[in-house]
Amino acid sequence: MSSQMGKQITITVFGESHAPAVGMTLCGVPAGERIDFEALAAFMRRRAPGKDAISTARCEADIPEFLCGVTGGVTTGAPITAIIRNSDTRSSDYKGFSQTPRPSHADYTATVKYGGKSDMRGGGHFSGRLTAPLCIGGGVALQILARRGVKIGAHALRIADVSDTPFDLAKVDESTLDALAARDFPTLSPAAGEKMIGEILAAKREGDSVGGVIECAVLGMPAGFGAPMFDGIENRLAAALFGIPAVKGVEFGSGFAAAGMRGSAHNDPFIFEGGIVRTKTNNSGGVQGGISNGMPIVFRIAVKPTPSIAKEQQTVNLQTGEAAALTIGGRHDPCIAVRAVPVTEAVAALTILDILSEVQ
Amino acid sequence: MSSQMGKQITITVFGESHAPAVGMTLCGVPAGERIDFEALAAFMRRRAPGKDAISTARCEADIPEFLCGVTGGVTTGAPITAIIRNSDTRSSDYKGFSQTPRPSHADYTATVKYGGKSDMRGGGHFSGRLTAPLCIGGGVALQILARRGVKIGAHALRIADVSDTPFDLAKVDESTLDALAARDFPTLSPAAGEKMIGEILAAKREGDSVGGVIECAVLGMPAGFGAPMFDGIENRLAAALFGIPAVKGVEFGSGFAAAGMRGSAHNDPFIFEGGIVRTKTNNSGGVQGGISNGMPIVFRIAVKPTPSIAKEQQTVNLQTGEAAALTIGGRHDPCIAVRAVPVTEAVAALTILDILSEVQ
Amino acid sequence: MSSQMGKQITITVFGESHAPAVGMTLCGVPAGERIDFEALAAFMRRRAPGKDAISTARCEADIPEFLCGVTGGVTTGAPITAIIRNSDTRSSDYKGFSQTPRPSHADYTATVKYGGKSDMRGGGHFSGRLTAPLCIGGGVALQILARRGVKIGAHALRIADVSDTPFDLAKVDESTLDALAARDFPTLSPAAGEKMIGEILAAKREGDSVGGVIECAVLGMPAGFGAPMFDGIENRLAAALFGIPAVKGVEFGSGFAAAGMRGSAHNDPFIFEGGIVRTKTNNSGGVQGGISNGMPIVFRIAVKPTPSIAKEQQTVNLQTGEAAALTIGGRHDPCIAVRAVPVTEAVAALTILDILSEVQ
Amino acid sequence: MSSQMGKQITITVFGESHAPAVGMTLCGVPAGERIDFEALAAFMRRRAPGKDAISTARCEADIPEFLCGVTGGVTTGAPITAIIRNSDTRSSDYKGFSQTPRPSHADYTATVKYGGKSDMRGGGHFSGRLTAPLCIGGGVALQILARRGVKIGAHALRIADVSDTPFDLAKVDESTLDALAARDFPTLSPAAGEKMIGEILAAKREGDSVGGVIECAVLGMPAGFGAPMFDGIENRLAAALFGIPAVKGVEFGSGFAAAGMRGSAHNDPFIFEGGIVRTKTNNSGGVQGGISNGMPIVFRIAVKPTPSIAKEQQTVNLQTGEAAALTIGGRHDPCIAVRAVPVTEAVAALTILDILSEVQ
Repeated sequence: MSSQMGKQITITVFGESHAPAVGMTLCGVPAGERIDFEALAAFMRRRAPGKDAISTARCEADIPEFLCGVTGGVTTGAPITAIIRNSDTRSSDYKGFSQTPRPSHADYTATVKYGGKSDMRGGGHFSGRLTAPLCIGGGVALQILARRGVKIGAHALRIADVSDTPFDLAKVDESTLDALAARDFPTLSPAAGEKMIGEILAAKREGDSVGGVIECAVLGMPAGFGAPMFDGIENRLAAALFGIPAVKGVEFGSGFAAAGMRGSAHNDPFIFEGGIVRTKTNNSGGVQGGISNGMPIVFRIAVKPTPSIAKEQQTVNLQTGEAAALTIGGRHDPCIAVRAVPVTEAVAALTILDILSEVQ
Repeated sequence: MSSQMGKQITITVFGESHAPAVGMTLCGVPAGERIDFEALAAFMRRRAPGKDAISTARCEADIPEFLCGVTGGVTTGAPITAIIRNSDTRSSDYKGFSQTPRPSHADYTATVKYGGKSDMRGGGHFSGRLTAPLCIGGGVALQILARRGVKIGAHALRIADVSDTPFDLAKVDESTLDALAARDFPTLSPAAGEKMIGEILAAKREGDSVGGVIECAVLGMPAGFGAPMFDGIENRLAAALFGIPAVKGVEFGSGFAAAGMRGSAHNDPFIFEGGIVRTKTNNSGGVQGGISNGMPIVFRIAVKPTPSIAKEQQTVNLQTGEAAALTIGGRHDPCIAVRAVPVTEAVAALTILDILSEVQ
Repeated sequence: MSSQMGKQITITVFGESHAPAVGMTLCGVPAGERIDFEALAAFMRRRAPGKDAISTARCEADIPEFLCGVTGGVTTGAPITAIIRNSDTRSSDYKGFSQTPRPSHADYTATVKYGGKSDMRGGGHFSGRLTAPLCIGGGVALQILARRGVKIGAHALRIADVSDTPFDLAKVDESTLDALAARDFPTLSPAAGEKMIGEILAAKREGDSVGGVIECAVLGMPAGFGAPMFDGIENRLAAALFGIPAVKGVEFGSGFAAAGMRGSAHNDPFIFEGGIVRTKTNNSGGVQGGISNGMPIVFRIAVKPTPSIAKEQQTVNLQTGEAAALTIGGRHDPCIAVRAVPVTEAVAALTILDILSEVQ
Repeated sequence: MSSQMGKQITITVFGESHAPAVGMTLCGVPAGERIDFEALAAFMRRRAPGKDAISTARCEADIPEFLCGVTGGVTTGAPITAIIRNSDTRSSDYKGFSQTPRPSHADYTATVKYGGKSDMRGGGHFSGRLTAPLCIGGGVALQILARRGVKIGAHALRIADVSDTPFDLAKVDESTLDALAARDFPTLSPAAGEKMIGEILAAKREGDSVGGVIECAVLGMPAGFGAPMFDGIENRLAAALFGIPAVKGVEFGSGFAAAGMRGSAHNDPFIFEGGIVRTKTNNSGGVQGGISNGMPIVFRIAVKPTPSIAKEQQTVNLQTGEAAALTIGGRHDPCIAVRAVPVTEAVAALTILDILSEVQ
């Protein structure tokens, strides 16, 4: 079940960077859900490469073709499969990595696991390219969630040493997410965005790359979803988010900062607000005991710097058993964290929709 | 499947703080595995409360009774069930929280989800008490793993503002874990441990609590286990670790620090060492593309400060709809992170053993 | 996941014939469900051995002890675990079968799979004894289903060559099931029941055993549950029913008789009856395309004759590699099909309750 | 997970009769397995319609296009997706069934479940057309199994009142399966096949249809696979086989005939043969206690007569609430059991390959 996730509503992701196509199948989506294909295309453009100086020059139309599960723009209840043909691939860029594995890539582990039989051109099934089908499914999930009052939005909280304004855990609301959606670069502060772009371009000029942190909020999640101990909201979101290539950490609410806090400061006092139970602060990140409490679900993921860099690196030649120097050609994002912002929303949407499908 | 995890080797955790018993069932453990009950008891004592000034005064023998799946100290291949009777419970300590939910506890979310029918005395099924059965299963898993050359050890990397010496990601080895095992307090640096105890007692005196970070290493994991995209080692460990109450974050290798690093510094160069492929650094935390690479798997979890504190807190009365002040009596750890150290090892062991059971 | 089944509501069965206990854990049962322990005990007595001349003389109280998940007779939403201590076991009866496997028992396959480490005394985890925990969980499920308007009842349709009156597929109703429930021996026709007992006792006198067919009806199942292609009602019931030891076949509605029918006779014409869509006949057995259609779900299972017989049998000595004659002592039902009637209801109840828990 | 099955090696089936395509994704297939596309095409032709007088005139090339997971004819370890475009569809044939549901079809239950939003033209996702992707995956599985010494073959044991020679449960071997493979019509006895064709054509002339029984053997299955209680070979094969449209029953070995047998006749005595433990008879159908015993696994499935018949039938108009007469146009097999023979092999192959992937 390696490339599948979900319980009631599942996504199966398939494809390889240099195979004829990538795609996905969504099972369990209710019948009668209208899909706005234009909105979906707009969402996918946010992930698409080649749209500015800071991302890879690989140019892909990324228009998904729906093969089944949708008629007249409305879901039928049957599995929904959509594919994207791979057109602009330059296989020669990626020759030879199976013998001299790229540092911090999956070349070596894939070689061990698949006995050298995996098609690792362009990263194969490990490629960031596979986040495109995640965005098809996630884009559909976002539309369904929106009709149920659940909105999801993410921003680049940090790139290199530059930080954006963090979400106010207890007060992040739709207007915050709307403001984000209007930006070309996904930061709340345009100035921070400018600085981040500067850092990314500086790294690119030096043949290097930078990492980042993405912060994501889920608004409108009703209280009472998720189940202890291993089926809670954090368990399931974390399991899904680590499926995004390059993610090194996941935290909810206060996250790692909780370690340095006293309980009296960390605890979220309950209050009544407009007849509804809320918490004054939201260090819990909207989840208590694995179950949603009606507050915004806020989490952050750490994204490592793109491992494909132009600078020469040290590796080994698996055949000769000798050290080897490696220079990676091809086109690569100097900062995958930026394009990972909509992917984070997509993965969150798929997981939250699945959790909402549990019987109450 | 809320209280179950695993694919080939599953654990089902059952029980409530004030029910007759807590326990667990392990399914899928191979036949013929000897269980060292004394070693298991010693492992469970590391989690047991009441052993010193810094943990809750609740005193439990915590000797598991094995009901099936083991004959003559050897597993039979059938499901293994073990239980611990709950003896020392003082229900009156926990009266009334269903109406005035404790901040940052599961009282409120459980009330929403279970319609007020859940038995939340002592935290019910959400209680830290449920980590005892996790340690039964995890303790068995640790013994099986040790016979297969896999060792797991964790330490309190940080408590409040005090930090222990971190693991050297690329060099942590058995001698490190052996040194840890010899300590009463789980730190590499005894001095750091002393300071941590000081911080914990200081918080306790003030009716407060502190959080922490636990770091854990898995040694001897062969390369090639785990599968992309959603069945990788990080996905599965993270999903399991968030099942430990109070965990707010999980990170692997460089973790959140990766956000501030350049790719050239973060990438782990491959080297040959003793005829084996290794990496010079280990920012990957032993995992690349979701698959183990043969290096130590190192991860960290953030543990929030104990939500049960003696200080008066603000909450609401769910019946009257009015604000309410709350003072929590009973006995509570001022820092659950310390007792969570062996629990982390247990959960890691269960997950790693399960992953190792996949067909290669 | 060998001894677990279910998706939303799962049962984990544990125990061995000669272990300290057998038991089960139900996960996912909603909070607030009252359990009538007397009704449960009455249900379990229907399965209990030693109650008449035709079943094994082994006498077991079979009173389940609930360890958690229930407070004041009401479910809490947490996992429900109940156990039955094994008291009356005579291990010496079962010595030696690991070397000379009993024909058509699991002795040989268990030896191969578990390397001779399984505890096969009394059949170990393969024993019919394990149907007792199934009846605990199933008995609870039956009570919950009854409150939702779903009733389940089964009868011995055939024992040896004697047949009971079959259910009228389209008209079986609660009065049919109530009549069955009033019988000591589970047949609609008391005369058929008498004859069956005669056949069973005749076989017993000859040191032999007989098989049978059980027919079961699920009434009140609303239309629209179950999902194609592999998650339909038949898929899930069949998978569960083959978990009952000795089951050799499962069929729905017309079943194998469908092979000899013309489509014009087999098709179930739709009719309106009291404003409700029904079918005139019910060869579909209440399921079309894997989804319930509102008609009674009727299925049959074939139960082989008890493999443990007093007559001498031929086997092999696995150590010497030579043919061996085998005489099985101990106490055995000459017809397990009779006691399997309530077990069938239990397994059906667990599966139907799980299916009803899917989101519509 | 409605259209997915499997644990280690999973198949996800997607598509609808009148959608752009049908297809499937196989996850978990090991890397390095060569696919013989010609052999696969030959296998799929056995299921293909339009090849003779007895099947539907709908003519489909059914050449699968592989989108990923295979490079140079060899599997890469990544998910394998293949699709078949739907070309020859005549939607007008199927107008109007959502209001006047066809008897014993899924029209009514799909309407209830999917609120009338499902695309039921041609049967939609419930169509026998969906068995084509099952044959893609199953055809691949058969090739992999053959390299591991496991062969699977099925025949039409019964059509209407005509019976073929049954498999000798204990002696069915490769030569039997090879003989079957050489036949145009899948019977051991050519004469029986001729008679069956006669029965089918007779029913067709009368605007009617006939049912059948398919018998299938799995040879070369090593002992020790499958696990009690709910993960046994019968549980998993049955769950999968009921995914084939129109299946009404599944039985193993002696099956329903076991009900009328004495234990002394039904038990399979163990014997040594060529140094290997075998059983003299094989009423167990190769499975004891859910675990393979090394003998042929033999099972039978009952297939109902095609519900789409030309004869006028009674149904209801769901909108007017009145009785309605229905005449179904379009092209339909008068006996789907014949084309279900290779589908049975496919489903068995997928399941057996998955079971063989469990850790021993």
